[in-house]
Amino acid sequence: MLDETAKGVFTIAVTPFKPNGDVDWESVDRMVDFYIEAGATGLTILGMMGEAGKLTAEESVGIVKRVVARSSVPIVVGVSAPGFAAMKALSDAAMDIGAAGVMVAPPSSLKTDGQILTYYHNTAEVLGDAPFVLQDFPLVTNVVVPTSVILQVVEDCPTCVMLKHEDWPGLDKISALRAASDKGARRISILCGNGGLYLLEEMLRGADGAMTGFAYPEMMAQVVEAHGAGDTDRARDIFDAYMPMVRYEAQPGLGLAIRKYTLAQRGVIAHDTVRKPGGMLSAATKSEVNALAARQADKLKELGL
Amino acid sequence: MLDETAKGVFTIAVTPFKPNGDVDWESVDRMVDFYIEAGATGLTILGMMGEAGKLTAEESVGIVKRVVARSSVPIVVGVSAPGFAAMKALSDAAMDIGAAGVMVAPPSSLKTDGQILTYYHNTAEVLGDAPFVLQDFPLVTNVVVPTSVILQVVEDCPTCVMLKHEDWPGLDKISALRAASDKGARRISILCGNGGLYLLEEMLRGADGAMTGFAYPEMMAQVVEAHGAGDTDRARDIFDAYMPMVRYEAQPGLGLAIRKYTLAQRGVIAHDTVRKPGGMLSAATKSEVNALAARQADKLKELGL
Amino acid sequence: MLDETAKGVFTIAVTPFKPNGDVDWESVDRMVDFYIEAGATGLTILGMMGEAGKLTAEESVGIVKRVVARSSVPIVVGVSAPGFAAMKALSDAAMDIGAAGVMVAPPSSLKTDGQILTYYHNTAEVLGDAPFVLQDFPLVTNVVVPTSVILQVVEDCPTCVMLKHEDWPGLDKISALRAASDKGARRISILCGNGGLYLLEEMLRGADGAMTGFAYPEMMAQVVEAHGAGDTDRARDIFDAYMPMVRYEAQPGLGLAIRKYTLAQRGVIAHDTVRKPGGMLSAATKSEVNALAARQADKLKELGL
Amino acid sequence: MLDETAKGVFTIAVTPFKPNGDVDWESVDRMVDFYIEAGATGLTILGMMGEAGKLTAEESVGIVKRVVARSSVPIVVGVSAPGFAAMKALSDAAMDIGAAGVMVAPPSSLKTDGQILTYYHNTAEVLGDAPFVLQDFPLVTNVVVPTSVILQVVEDCPTCVMLKHEDWPGLDKISALRAASDKGARRISILCGNGGLYLLEEMLRGADGAMTGFAYPEMMAQVVEAHGAGDTDRARDIFDAYMPMVRYEAQPGLGLAIRKYTLAQRGVIAHDTVRKPGGMLSAATKSEVNALAARQADKLKELGL
Repeated sequence: MLDETAKGVFTIAVTPFKPNGDVDWESVDRMVDFYIEAGATGLTILGMMGEAGKLTAEESVGIVKRVVARSSVPIVVGVSAPGFAAMKALSDAAMDIGAAGVMVAPPSSLKTDGQILTYYHNTAEVLGDAPFVLQDFPLVTNVVVPTSVILQVVEDCPTCVMLKHEDWPGLDKISALRAASDKGARRISILCGNGGLYLLEEMLRGADGAMTGFAYPEMMAQVVEAHGAGDTDRARDIFDAYMPMVRYEAQPGLGLAIRKYTLAQRGVIAHDTVRKPGGMLSAATKSEVNALAARQADKLKELGL
Repeated sequence: MLDETAKGVFTIAVTPFKPNGDVDWESVDRMVDFYIEAGATGLTILGMMGEAGKLTAEESVGIVKRVVARSSVPIVVGVSAPGFAAMKALSDAAMDIGAAGVMVAPPSSLKTDGQILTYYHNTAEVLGDAPFVLQDFPLVTNVVVPTSVILQVVEDCPTCVMLKHEDWPGLDKISALRAASDKGARRISILCGNGGLYLLEEMLRGADGAMTGFAYPEMMAQVVEAHGAGDTDRARDIFDAYMPMVRYEAQPGLGLAIRKYTLAQRGVIAHDTVRKPGGMLSAATKSEVNALAARQADKLKELGL
Repeated sequence: MLDETAKGVFTIAVTPFKPNGDVDWESVDRMVDFYIEAGATGLTILGMMGEAGKLTAEESVGIVKRVVARSSVPIVVGVSAPGFAAMKALSDAAMDIGAAGVMVAPPSSLKTDGQILTYYHNTAEVLGDAPFVLQDFPLVTNVVVPTSVILQVVEDCPTCVMLKHEDWPGLDKISALRAASDKGARRISILCGNGGLYLLEEMLRGADGAMTGFAYPEMMAQVVEAHGAGDTDRARDIFDAYMPMVRYEAQPGLGLAIRKYTLAQRGVIAHDTVRKPGGMLSAATKSEVNALAARQADKLKELGL
Repeated sequence: MLDETAKGVFTIAVTPFKPNGDVDWESVDRMVDFYIEAGATGLTILGMMGEAGKLTAEESVGIVKRVVARSSVPIVVGVSAPGFAAMKALSDAAMDIGAAGVMVAPPSSLKTDGQILTYYHNTAEVLGDAPFVLQDFPLVTNVVVPTSVILQVVEDCPTCVMLKHEDWPGLDKISALRAASDKGARRISILCGNGGLYLLEEMLRGADGAMTGFAYPEMMAQVVEAHGAGDTDRARDIFDAYMPMVRYEAQPGLGLAIRKYTLAQRGVIAHDTVRKPGGMLSAATKSEVNALAARQADKLKELGL
C-alpha cells in the first residue's frame, strides 16, 4: 500500500494504442518492463497523459489488471472523474486488483478554498481505505490549491499520503509544505510533475522524487540518485543534458504525441498512436525531436552515460 | 428514430436518487409517466441536469433501459464524454436498447471554430448511424459555437438532426439558422433550453419547441400549443404566470435542487436528493419556492388552468 | 460620504454616446435628472454597464465631474482597474470632485481566498479614506468570493462600507452575511445587482436595496418602498409586472444595448449607441422589446401605476 | 516606421520602479542603453512584462517619451486596452512622440474566429496609419487565434506588419504562416516570445527573430546571428548554455520578478521592484537564480563568450 514514505520515480505511464485505436496490450507489458528497468520505483497509470479520459470504463479496468499483473513496483491509478460514483467504482476495482493507491485531481468547477477542501473530504470518504494522491496541476485543472488547503487535507484525511506537485510556479510551495511538516504537520510524500522541467530545484526544495512521464525516465532516476548521493553537480550535469528535450516535450497538448513518438523510436511501444481527439506530429516536429535526441546522446556520452 | 421533424417538448429528465444516493428506480417510472402526461413529445435523459457525470457507466445504461422500457415517446440520451471511446460505448448501448437518438455537448477544451467543427466530424463518425443532437450551451461548456459552425456541421453530418439551443443570448441565432434554411440549408429541429426562460420568444423566432426540465413541464407544452394555435396572447399569459418560478429555478447550480424539490413536492419523485457534489436547499430557499408555487397556483386558476 | 447606512436604489448609470461615439453630455444631464425622479437614492457611474472600460482616463474624469455637478444624491464611482496606480488616480480624482465613494470589482486573475483578501487589503490601503463598495459579480469577473472572505474584508478594512451583491445564486449569501452581523460582525450595506431579477427575494433576505440599472428604475424604487412598508403582496405585484422585461434585459452582453434602447425610447438619452466593441439590436429584438413594453404598460395600468 | 521587414531582436523592456513604486527614470535610460548594446534591433515597451496594466495613462505616455528620446532603435508600444478609446488615445500619443508602431493583444472576451477577426478590423480602423503588431499569446489572453484568422487579418489590414508569436505549442503555426506566404499571402515579420524557450526551433521554422525580454538579451542576439550565419551548431551551443536560466525565468507570474532581479544584479536597473499586485522573490528563489547564473557564466566561458 502506498504511504507517506514513497520516493524515487513514479513514472507516469502512457497508454499504448494500435494504429486503429485499440489498446496495444503487448506494448503495455513492454512499457512496464522498460519503466522499471529505467529506475521507476512505482508507476502511475490512467493519468492525464495516460489518456484516461479517452478510455471506456471497461478498458480502464483492463489496463489496471494488465499493469498490476506485470509490475514488480507499486501502481498508482488515476481515478479522477466528474462524479464520485464513477471515481469510487474505478478506485474499488483498482484496489481489489492490487493497486497501491489512487490519484485524484480537482474538477475545474471548484473555485474557493472551501469548495476544494470539501471536495477532498468527500473524496476521502468515498475512497474508504484506499491511500490517495492529491494531484495539484492548475495549468490543466484551472484549480489553484493554496498550501493552506493542502495542509488542511493532510490534517483531515489520513489516507492522503502524497502530493503530485505540478503547480507552476511551485517551488516555494514545496518549501512551505516542508516548513509546515518541520513544525509538526504530517509529512507526506511529494513527487513532482511538469515533465521534469524543474526536477533538480524541486529535489533541492525537499521533494521526494518525480512523478512524471518524460520519455527518457532514466533521467529522473539518475538526477534523483545523484541528488540523494549529495552530488548536486553531477545531478545538474545530467539534468542539463536532457533539458533541451524536456523543454521540447513540455509543449502542452503536443507533449504526449512527442513522448509517444520517442517511446516508439526507442522500441518501448509499437506505435505512437494518440487516440482522438489528439494531435499527430508534423514531419518538422519529428525532425526536431530527432535532432534533439542525437545531440542529447552526444552529451550523455560525454557524461559517461 | 429521431429526425429533423421532431417538435414539441422533449423534457430533460432528472435522475431520481434515494437519500442514500442509490438510483430510485420506482421514481424513474413515475417520473416518465408524469412527463408524458404533462405533454412531453419526447424525453432527454442523462443530460447535465440528469447528473450524468455523477453516474457510473453501469448506472447510465441501467437508466436508459428503464426509461426506454417505460416510455411511449422517443428517448434522447446524453452521451457527452471526455473521449470518443466512452461516448461510443454509451451511444451504441443506448441505440441497441431502443433510444431514438443521442446528444453531444462540446468539451470545454475546444477553442476555435475549426476545433469545434473537427470535433463534430469525429463525433458523427464515431456515432455511426445514430441521429444526434448538438447541444449548444456556452454558459456551462465555455464553448461558443458560431452559427456558421452549426450550419457547417449540418451540411457535413447528415446524422445531426437537432440543435439543443441554449446559447444566451441566443434569439438572433435562431433567426439566423432559420434564415439559412430558408435559403437552402437543411432545416434541422431546434428545441430550446435555458429552463424555458425565453421560450415564447424562441418559438416566435422559429424554434420547434423546448428541451428543458422546468419542474412544471406542462408550462412548456401549453405555451408551445398556444403558440402553435396562433394564440400568442394566451401563450404569453401562461408564460408570464410561470415566469417567477422559471426565473427562480434558473439559478445555476442551485436550479437542479430546486427542480427536484418541486418534483418531490408534486409527488413525482420520492426524494429531492442531489448526488454529491451538489447542493441542498436552505430552509429559506424552500420557503421562497413554496411562496412562488402558491402564487403561481392562484395565477393559473385565473387563467382556468 | 458613503457609509454602512446607505439604502434604497443606487441606479447604475449608463454612459450616453452620440452616434459617432462621442460622449453625449446633454444626455448625461437628462439621465441624472431622470434617475433621481425615478426614485434613486444614489447613482453609480463608470460601472461595467457604464462602459467604463471603453472610456479614456480623461473621459472618465469628465463624466464624474458632470454627474457630480448635476446630482442631488450621492455618487459612487467604479474605479476597477488592472493595476492599483490607475485605480488610485481615478479614485483620488473622483473623491476630490465630490464623489461619495468608489466601487472595486476583483480582477479575474485572483484565484484563491487568500489572493482575494490580499487584493482588498491592498485596495483599501491604496484608496486611503475613500469609502468603497466591494463588487461581487462572479458571472463576469470569474472570481467567486466566499462569504468568509467578505466578512474578513469587512473586519480588516473599515472603509469597506457596502457590498454590491450580484453573486448568482446568491440569496443564501445575503442571509449568511446578515446572520454574521447579527452575531457581531460590522453590518455593511448590501445593495443588489443582477438587473433586479431577484430583487424581492433579496429584500426579504435582508438586503438594503438595489444597485442595478434596469431601464425602468422606478420598479426598484417601488418594490423597495412596498417592501419597506411591509406590503409584500404589493411588492410582488409590481415585481411580477416588470419581470418579463427584467428577464429580457438580463441577457448578457445584449442587455446593455436593450437598456439603452429603452432609455432612448423613453426619451432619457438621445441615442442608443453602444461603443465598440458592443452589440446593436436586431430589428427582431427591438420588436420584442416593444411588445414587452406594451404589455408591461397594460399590467402597470391595472396596478394603478 | 515599423514594417514587414523587421527582424532581429525587439527586446521586451521592463518598467523600472523605485522601492516606493515610482517609475525610476534613470534606470529607464540605463536599460535602453543596455538593451541596445546587447544587440536589440528594436524595443517593445508597455507590454505585459512591462507592467503596462499597472501604470496610469499619464505614466504610460511618460515612458514612451523617455524611451523614444533615448533610443537609437525603433520602439513598439503596447496599447492593448479594454476599449478602443483608450487604445486609440495611447496609440495616437505614442506615434506622435515617435514610436515606430504599436502592439495589440486580443481581449479575453473574444471567443470565436469571427469575433477575433472583427476585433482586429476595428483595431486597424481605430489605429489609422499606425503599423501594428498582432500579439498571439493564448497562455495569458485565453484567446486561441487560428492561423486562418491571422492570415485573414494580414489580408484585410495592410497596417498589420508583424506577429508577436507566443502560441504554445506554436512551431507548426510558424511553418503554416510561412507556407502561406510562399503561396502568395503577404509576408509579415514574425518575432517570437515565450521568453526565448523555443527560439532556435522558431528561427529554423522561419521566424525573423525574437521579441521577448529574457534578462540576458544577448542570448537572443547571438542565437539569431549564429543562425543567420548558417552556424546552427554554434546557435545550439549558445542556446543550450542559457537554457536552464531561460526555463527558470519562464515560470508564469514569477518570471517578471526573476527577470528584474537579474537585471538589478547586472546593474541595469537600480531596483528589482515589481509593482503591486506582483510577487517578490523568496530567498530560496534568489539562491537558485544565483546558482544558475554562476553555472551559466562557466558554460559561456567555455564557448568563448
